[in-house]
Amino acid sequence: MTPEQFRQAGYAVVDWIADYWASLAQRPVTSQGPPGAVAAGLPAGPPAGGEPVEAVLADLDKLVAPGLTHWQHPGFFGYFPANTSGPSVLGDLVSAGLGVQGMLWSTGPACTELETVMLDWLAEAMDLPARFRSAGRGGGVIQDSASSATLVATLVAVHRAAGGRWREVGVDRRYRVYTSTEAHSSVEKAARIAGLGAEGVRLVEVDPQSRAMSPVALRAAIEADRAAGVVPALVVATVGTTSTTAIDPLPQIGPICAEHGVFLHVDAAYAGAAAVCPELRFGHAGLEYADSYCFDPHKWLLTGFDCDAFWVADSTELVEALTVLPEYLRNAASESGAVIDYRDWQVPLGRRFRALKLWFVLRWYGVEGLREHIRSGVALAARFADRVRADERFELVTPHPYGLVCFRLRGADGPNEQLLSAVNGSGRVYLTHTRVAGRYTLRLAVGAPQTAEAHVDEAWELLSRVAETVG
Amino acid sequence: MTPEQFRQAGYAVVDWIADYWASLAQRPVTSQGPPGAVAAGLPAGPPAGGEPVEAVLADLDKLVAPGLTHWQHPGFFGYFPANTSGPSVLGDLVSAGLGVQGMLWSTGPACTELETVMLDWLAEAMDLPARFRSAGRGGGVIQDSASSATLVATLVAVHRAAGGRWREVGVDRRYRVYTSTEAHSSVEKAARIAGLGAEGVRLVEVDPQSRAMSPVALRAAIEADRAAGVVPALVVATVGTTSTTAIDPLPQIGPICAEHGVFLHVDAAYAGAAAVCPELRFGHAGLEYADSYCFDPHKWLLTGFDCDAFWVADSTELVEALTVLPEYLRNAASESGAVIDYRDWQVPLGRRFRALKLWFVLRWYGVEGLREHIRSGVALAARFADRVRADERFELVTPHPYGLVCFRLRGADGPNEQLLSAVNGSGRVYLTHTRVAGRYTLRLAVGAPQTAEAHVDEAWELLSRVAETVG
Repeated sequence: MTPEQFRQAGYAVVDWIADYWASLAQRPVTSQGPPGAVAAGLPAGPPAGGEPVEAVLADLDKLVAPGLTHWQHPGFFGYFPANTSGPSVLGDLVSAGLGVQGMLWSTGPACTELETVMLDWLAEAMDLPARFRSAGRGGGVIQDSASSATLVATLVAVHRAAGGRWREVGVDRRYRVYTSTEAHSSVEKAARIAGLGAEGVRLVEVDPQSRAMSPVALRAAIEADRAAGVVPALVVATVGTTSTTAIDPLPQIGPICAEHGVFLHVDAAYAGAAAVCPELRFGHAGLEYADSYCFDPHKWLLTGFDCDAFWVADSTELVEALTVLPEYLRNAASESGAVIDYRDWQVPLGRRFRALKLWFVLRWYGVEGLREHIRSGVALAARFADRVRADERFELVTPHPYGLVCFRLRGADGPNEQLLSAVNGSGRVYLTHTRVAGRYTLRLAVGAPQTAEAHVDEAWELLSRVAETVG
Repeated sequence: MTPEQFRQAGYAVVDWIADYWASLAQRPVTSQGPPGAVAAGLPAGPPAGGEPVEAVLADLDKLVAPGLTHWQHPGFFGYFPANTSGPSVLGDLVSAGLGVQGMLWSTGPACTELETVMLDWLAEAMDLPARFRSAGRGGGVIQDSASSATLVATLVAVHRAAGGRWREVGVDRRYRVYTSTEAHSSVEKAARIAGLGAEGVRLVEVDPQSRAMSPVALRAAIEADRAAGVVPALVVATVGTTSTTAIDPLPQIGPICAEHGVFLHVDAAYAGAAAVCPELRFGHAGLEYADSYCFDPHKWLLTGFDCDAFWVADSTELVEALTVLPEYLRNAASESGAVIDYRDWQVPLGRRFRALKLWFVLRWYGVEGLREHIRSGVALAARFADRVRADERFELVTPHPYGLVCFRLRGADGPNEQLLSAVNGSGRVYLTHTRVAGRYTLRLAVGAPQTAEAHVDEAWELLSRVAETVG
């Protein structure tokens, strides 16, 4: 494809996306097709000769779009948002066009340097502790996801616990990872990948009301393990848990980690974004104790997946844990020690120029624009919670400090399951569920960029109406 | 940003990319700026208010583009290619615009199903063994990189070696990974991440001429380890090593793995793409023995990073190893067993709609177009090798079955290092180096989409001329 062919086809794809966004509210939020419906519409093998882009766009409309869950739909309230925005898409487009490989500083100096600066910009916008800024021993990097950030933190933690011998001899199965019963499943997955097994994870109990990790239980678990010859290596605390956005108390957890020399990773995948607003930084109290921290701009900060922002307080330790240096990657800049080679900050070797989308987002919206987006989500969630609170058929299950509301019909689980199924079946909105202390609970998470009062109100009206018919 | 604002800014970014591609040949291939030059040009913090896209594009020209290594430049011959193409960029653009999260089938049915079908299309285009097709127990998935594919293969191998107990109890440090001394550094990195340590990797010697793994040495290592109570868990064989594109002999390695019950992963990250051409499938002889296989469409198949195509012969085993199921991810489709949830095929939970770029590439070029691209690269490499062969100052260090030529000035290393440095300093071409049997060796890897005879000839003329001035 020549540059001129690309220009023409590129306009057509830009038009397709603009039209898609403009038409989102008219589409059903989720696909109603059965498993295999999309695959059945595709030829069994690739074409021998080439086809024009128009033919692919036609099939995009005919086969793909109807088979999607539309995460950018204003009625999408499932999971956590995975929102994107025009400037993010444009930054990613530039990245795709450049096709730069940022594994080493020398393979794309601007790719590395813009990333370092963007993570510093984010740290400033969120007022993160100074230890995470690149001016000192710390610094930030983009990972694909909070799962990968947790894995990297786990690896650095076992490296530290082993006094640096982990690289050579492997993991010691006496190492333990502590996280709450409400933590994300990626903590167990990371521990398993690192060779600790599910048995290497201690699930610390939570406060029954707040669903936040109990510091008393954490201390007790660490002390009991140490007495038994087990080695506490890592605590993963969560700011904004997946089920209910509970906030583990860092001001109490941090000192316990410090006292016992345990690596502290803070996972704020969803809720971290809120810290662009000064009044929503309460979850970060005590963050200065953390050895590493991450949040996902790709969840709630108008930046498309994948973009997890991960910071460490000591990048030297991270690089020591992960570096491998074959001859074919040696170069003068790396050997000078004056540059960052981000390949040593992550699991894969290769990496895209993902800082561009952050740059486009931060410059288009400015910090004030991002604050407005977050505040809008929090306000819409509060608006919805008010409806729930005012209706005695329903109950709020947990507080809603951010953009997620956890609620349910009072009473048994069954009607709640029916309610969720019926409401999602309407195609107008999409919510997901969790269990809180064993009880089936509905989750409404605000954050899609087009979501406005009318959509939240429609969700409530639908829930309220369907509630009459279940049970 | 409204859809209409996106449309206008989108056209401008498409224009920027088309102009960038059209201007590539006039740019220096690499940045000549010192470390910190790009960062120094950026403000210390994010803007408070928003800025127009034009301002960002202006800074892209002023600050970012001059600070890049241009991987799509026709004079880029370093590492392996990381080529992209118009249709790949457009497919990625659609993916960014949709902003779909494909972690579960239910969170984006078309995202999952198109991926399964695209991996089947690729398997057909490359004539991969039937065991990797989704019609049976096997199937394909997109990983971000061959590094991650190797890691996943390592995890499944230790899961199998442990009889399924690895998930719970962790890794056994007696497990060993076997790969050649010429294998990619990601094999050691994966073993370390999995908790086996560098000591868990046995580097098997290679044939001094072909640089391919010695099956005799592999058998001896496995048998000696078994006799010593060590457990062989995984062999990683390479088709097209990073240094020299050596091809490990699968027809001999496969039966050894089968005899000893060792998981066999085949890493064809670069060279696998050549198999779209029937006459270039020689590296895949014996691939029917493999438990898993990967190659990178993002290296040499006109598909932008990240797109590693990874297949397994038994997806049940893979899912068993990697799955974790919290309540908030439960859904009826997953429980039906009728769908694939790709989150269980990879390390992270989240995933983009990367199959779109493969779809756009396969349809725009067709299989014949991809063959033409590969054949052109092989022919250009052969043309360059002919020049080297005809000049008695130089020697070819290894065969060049694909698009990489390894060569050097006869004699000491010093002049070769000077030659590389001087040629790269010209800004007209970019080559990298390796060591082959200890000797400093230059690598010229053809594969950037715009590279034509004139660029390869220019590289040779430059090398030939500068060779007079070194030593």
